[in-house]
Amino acid sequence: MTAFHVYDTTLRDGAQQEGMNLSVADKLAIAGLLDALGVGFIEGGWPGAIPKDTEFFQRAAKELSLEHATLAAFGSTRKALGKAATDPQVKALLEAETPVVTLVAKSDIRHVERALRTTASENLAMIADTVGYLVGEGRRVFLDAEHFFDGYRFDSAYGLRCLQAAAEAGAEVLVLCDTNGGMLPGWIQQIVGEVRAALGDGVNLGIHCHNDTGCAVANSQAAIEAGAMHVQGTINGYGERTGNADLTAIVPNLVVKYGLPALPGAELADLTRIAHAIAEITNIQPFARQPYVGVSAFAHKAGLHASAIRVDPDLYQHIDPQLVGNDMRMLVSEMAGRASVELKGRELGFDLHGNGEVLTRVTERVKALEAEGYTFDAADASFELLLRAELSGQALSYFETESWRTISETLVHGEGGTVSEATVKLHAGDRRFVATGEGNGPVNALDAALRSALLETYPELGQIELVDFKVRILDSSRGTDAITRVMIESTDGREVWRTVGVGENIIEASWEALVDALTYGLLQAGVEPR
Amino acid sequence: MTAFHVYDTTLRDGAQQEGMNLSVADKLAIAGLLDALGVGFIEGGWPGAIPKDTEFFQRAAKELSLEHATLAAFGSTRKALGKAATDPQVKALLEAETPVVTLVAKSDIRHVERALRTTASENLAMIADTVGYLVGEGRRVFLDAEHFFDGYRFDSAYGLRCLQAAAEAGAEVLVLCDTNGGMLPGWIQQIVGEVRAALGDGVNLGIHCHNDTGCAVANSQAAIEAGAMHVQGTINGYGERTGNADLTAIVPNLVVKYGLPALPGAELADLTRIAHAIAEITNIQPFARQPYVGVSAFAHKAGLHASAIRVDPDLYQHIDPQLVGNDMRMLVSEMAGRASVELKGRELGFDLHGNGEVLTRVTERVKALEAEGYTFDAADASFELLLRAELSGQALSYFETESWRTISETLVHGEGGTVSEATVKLHAGDRRFVATGEGNGPVNALDAALRSALLETYPELGQIELVDFKVRILDSSRGTDAITRVMIESTDGREVWRTVGVGENIIEASWEALVDALTYGLLQAGVEPR
Repeated sequence: MTAFHVYDTTLRDGAQQEGMNLSVADKLAIAGLLDALGVGFIEGGWPGAIPKDTEFFQRAAKELSLEHATLAAFGSTRKALGKAATDPQVKALLEAETPVVTLVAKSDIRHVERALRTTASENLAMIADTVGYLVGEGRRVFLDAEHFFDGYRFDSAYGLRCLQAAAEAGAEVLVLCDTNGGMLPGWIQQIVGEVRAALGDGVNLGIHCHNDTGCAVANSQAAIEAGAMHVQGTINGYGERTGNADLTAIVPNLVVKYGLPALPGAELADLTRIAHAIAEITNIQPFARQPYVGVSAFAHKAGLHASAIRVDPDLYQHIDPQLVGNDMRMLVSEMAGRASVELKGRELGFDLHGNGEVLTRVTERVKALEAEGYTFDAADASFELLLRAELSGQALSYFETESWRTISETLVHGEGGTVSEATVKLHAGDRRFVATGEGNGPVNALDAALRSALLETYPELGQIELVDFKVRILDSSRGTDAITRVMIESTDGREVWRTVGVGENIIEASWEALVDALTYGLLQAGVEPR
Repeated sequence: MTAFHVYDTTLRDGAQQEGMNLSVADKLAIAGLLDALGVGFIEGGWPGAIPKDTEFFQRAAKELSLEHATLAAFGSTRKALGKAATDPQVKALLEAETPVVTLVAKSDIRHVERALRTTASENLAMIADTVGYLVGEGRRVFLDAEHFFDGYRFDSAYGLRCLQAAAEAGAEVLVLCDTNGGMLPGWIQQIVGEVRAALGDGVNLGIHCHNDTGCAVANSQAAIEAGAMHVQGTINGYGERTGNADLTAIVPNLVVKYGLPALPGAELADLTRIAHAIAEITNIQPFARQPYVGVSAFAHKAGLHASAIRVDPDLYQHIDPQLVGNDMRMLVSEMAGRASVELKGRELGFDLHGNGEVLTRVTERVKALEAEGYTFDAADASFELLLRAELSGQALSYFETESWRTISETLVHGEGGTVSEATVKLHAGDRRFVATGEGNGPVNALDAALRSALLETYPELGQIELVDFKVRILDSSRGTDAITRVMIESTDGREVWRTVGVGENIIEASWEALVDALTYGLLQAGVEPR
C-alpha cells in the first residue's frame, strides 16, 4: 500500500474562514511552517481563479525550498461542453507547475443538474477528460469528489461512476468529501467501506471533512479505519462555517493513538509551536480549549487532582504533553513552566539545566510579563534579551532614551491624506542626539527617527530592516482602551528575529518592540555596547 | 426502556474551565436557561465541598421553578473505612435536598491504590454503602464511574465489579466516564458493548466524555449507539482542559440526525439563543466556528457556492439553520461575485435582484476596495453604508471633517509612561466645532475628541460605545511601512455592528472605521443627517 498522505489545505479551504485574509507573503510563511511540521502535501490555492494564488505559485517556485512536502494546485474540471486542453482554468493549473493537481468534481447528481446545470454523462466526461489531460501532461492528479457522501446517500450508483471515471483516467487518489459537513462517523465508515468493496482494494481513497456536526476529527478517522490512506484538513481547523477537519488533532491521534506513522520523523514535538506560529500569521485568536495545542489543553484546575498529579501526572492526562510540544499547567499559578523556559533556553543555546536559580528567576519574570500580556512563544529575540539580562544581572543597552514624540495629522492644505512625524532624544556613546523622522504612520516615523539618531554611532543599523509588524488587541472588550501587544520581525539579510512590546498605548508598545529589535540586531552584528 | 436522559453539568464540571468564575446568581440564571432548553437533569454543584454550591442548592429550592429539569447534587462516595450515614460530605448531599444525587466513584484500580490509597475491596464497599444509604433516604442515585475507560483497558474485571456494586445497591444509572478524555469512538463503542453484554440489558448506562482527542461529541454518540441512555455534557463544551462533551452539538445531532426525542418539545429552535445567553453570563468569548450555534456556523464565503445557494440553499447546508435558531449569512469577500452581494443585500433588507445596474456597481466597488485591503465579510455596517451610498448616489454623512491631529509622547518630567491627545476640527449642522480629547493611545484620544465635538449636535452618541478594536497589518512584509486594516465593533446596548478602515497610516485607518461606526450608529438611532 502507498504511504499514508497527510494533505493540508489551510492555504486554500482554510482561507475560506470568516475574517481570514492571507497575503502572498503570509501564505509563503505558512507553507514553510507546514513543511517543518512534516505534512506530505500543501494545497497552495486556486491558480487562475484567484490572482493572489497565481502569484503564490510563481513565488513558491522561486522562494520555497520544501524538505518534505509536495505542492498541490487546486482547480475544477473543465467547463461543460469544452475541451480540457483549451480551458483557461485548466491551463492555469498547468502553469502553476506543481507536481500534484487536485481537481474538484461534482459527484452528487443533484449538484450536477441544479448547480452545474449539465447532464450526468457530460459531468462524467468532464472528469475523465480533465484528469486524463493533466495526467498526460505529467501531473499526479487527486480527485476531490465534492458532496460525495450526500450524493451517495441520494444516488450511490452515480457517485461510484464519478469515482470510476476519475480512476480510469489515471487519478491517483479519490478523495470523498463531506462538503456540507453533515455526516456522522458511523455513516462515513459504512459508505467508505461500501466504496472500497465496489472499487476494489487497488484504489486509493481519501477523506475531506467539515465540522458542522462537531465530528470532523472522528469522521476523518472513521474513514481511515475503513481504509482511506489520505486525509485532508487544516491547521487549527480553519475553514468556512464550522471549519475543516483539524489536522492539529487528527495527526497526533493518528501517531499517538493509532500508531500510524503519519509524519516523516519526530516533528510531532513541534506541533504546538507551529500551530501557534500559524495563528500569529493568520491573526486569528487561538482557541484555548483546542485539543493537544490549546493553552488550556493540559491545564488542571481541580484542587482534588492537584496532590495526585504530583504523585503521578499520568493518572490525570491522556498523553505526556511534551509529545506534542505542549506543557502541563496547574492553574493556581503557572503560566509558563520551568520546563518550557528550559527548553526555549536550550533552543537559543543556553543550558539552564544545571542553573536552577536562574531558571527560577527567568520563569518568574516570564510569568509576570505574560500576566501583563507579553508572549514569548514567537518573540524569540525579546526572550533572549530577557534571558541574557537575568544571566548577567544587567539589561543589554546600546543607548539611553531621553524622550520621544510622534504626531499624526491630516494634510489640510494638500490633497487630503495623512502625515506622521516623530522626534527622538537619546544618548549614545557619551553624546546626545536629537533627530526627527517622517513616515506613513507613527511607528514608521519613530523607526526613521531612531535610526537617524543612531546611525552615526552604529553604522551596522544600515543592514537591519523591519520586515513585519503585527498588532493584537488583548482584552478587546475594553474597546480602544484595551492593552495592545505589538510584534516586530526584523532581518539583517541572513537571520530573522522577532520582538514584542506591550502597553496600554499602541505607540508605547511599538517603541518597546522597536528598541528590542534594534538592540538584538546590534548584538547579532557583534557590536559592543558603549 | 427508560426515556433518554440529557444531563447537563455546566454548573459543576463546566465551571472547572480556565477563566470561568460563576457567582451563585450566575448559576441560578444558567439553571433557568438550561430548563428552558429542556434538558432532563441539571447538576448544580458539589454541596459541602464548595461553599458557593451549598448556597446554590439552598437558593435553588426557593428561587427556581423548573418546568422540565430535575436538579442533581454531585459528591463522592464516603471516606475509606468510614460510614456513609456519618460522612459529612454525604450528609451535605442529603441536605441539598435534590431528587437526584450523582456520586463519583473510583473505577480504575490504579487510582484506587495510588490516588485514593485504599484497597480494591474497600472501594467496592464505599460504593455499595454510599449508594445504598442514599437510596434508602429516598434519592435517585446516578453513579459516575471515574476513569472508567482507562481502568477497563487496564483491568476490565475490576471496573465491572465497581459497576455491579453500584447496581446491586440500587443505582439507577451507571455513567461511564472518560475522565482524561483520551478515548476514540471505536474504543468507546466496543467497551460500552462489552459492559452491556456483561451486565445485561436491565442496567441503564450513561456516558461522560472530555474533548482531549477532539472526539467528545463522537465518543458520546458512539456510547449512545452502543446502548447508553444517558449523556452528560456542558453548554458550549465548557470544562477543564479541552472541555466536556458539547451538548450544543450532541443534542441537535441526536434530534436531527438520529431522530431521537432528546428534548421534551420544540426547544431546539431556542438552542442558539440559549447558548449565546449562557456565554454572556459566563463572560467567555463564544467560539465563532462552534457547530450549530456559532456565528460562523452557517456563514458562506466561497463565490463558487454563492450563485448555487441563490438557486437552492439546501444544496450547501447540512440542515436548515432555523431548526437550531441560527441564520444563514453570506460573507462578502474577494471570492464573491454579484450573487453574494445580492444575497448579502437581501439579508440587510435591500432587494437588489431587479436592480442589475446597482448590483454591478456595488460588486465592482467591493472588489476594488478589497484589492486595497478592505474586507467586508465581518464589517456589515461599513458594507451597508457603501450599499446605501450606491443606491442613493451619495454617501451618508452627519458631519464634515476639516482636519484632525494626534500627538503621542513620553512624559519627560513625570514617572515615565506615555500620553496621547487628539484635536479634531469639523462642521456639523452649519456650525464649526474644535475639540480636544485625551486617551491612553492615539485612537482612544481621537474617539474622545470626536465625541466631544459632536455630542451637542447628536446627543444620541452618548448611547454608542466601542466594544472591540482589532488591527491587522496587511502585506506585513513591508514592515512598519505596510497597509493597516482596522476593525471596530460598536454597540448601542441592543445591537452590535462592525466597521472597517484601511490606510497606509494606522491612525488614518482607525479614523475611517471610527467615522463609519458613529455614522452607522446615528443611522440606527433614526437621526436625520443635517
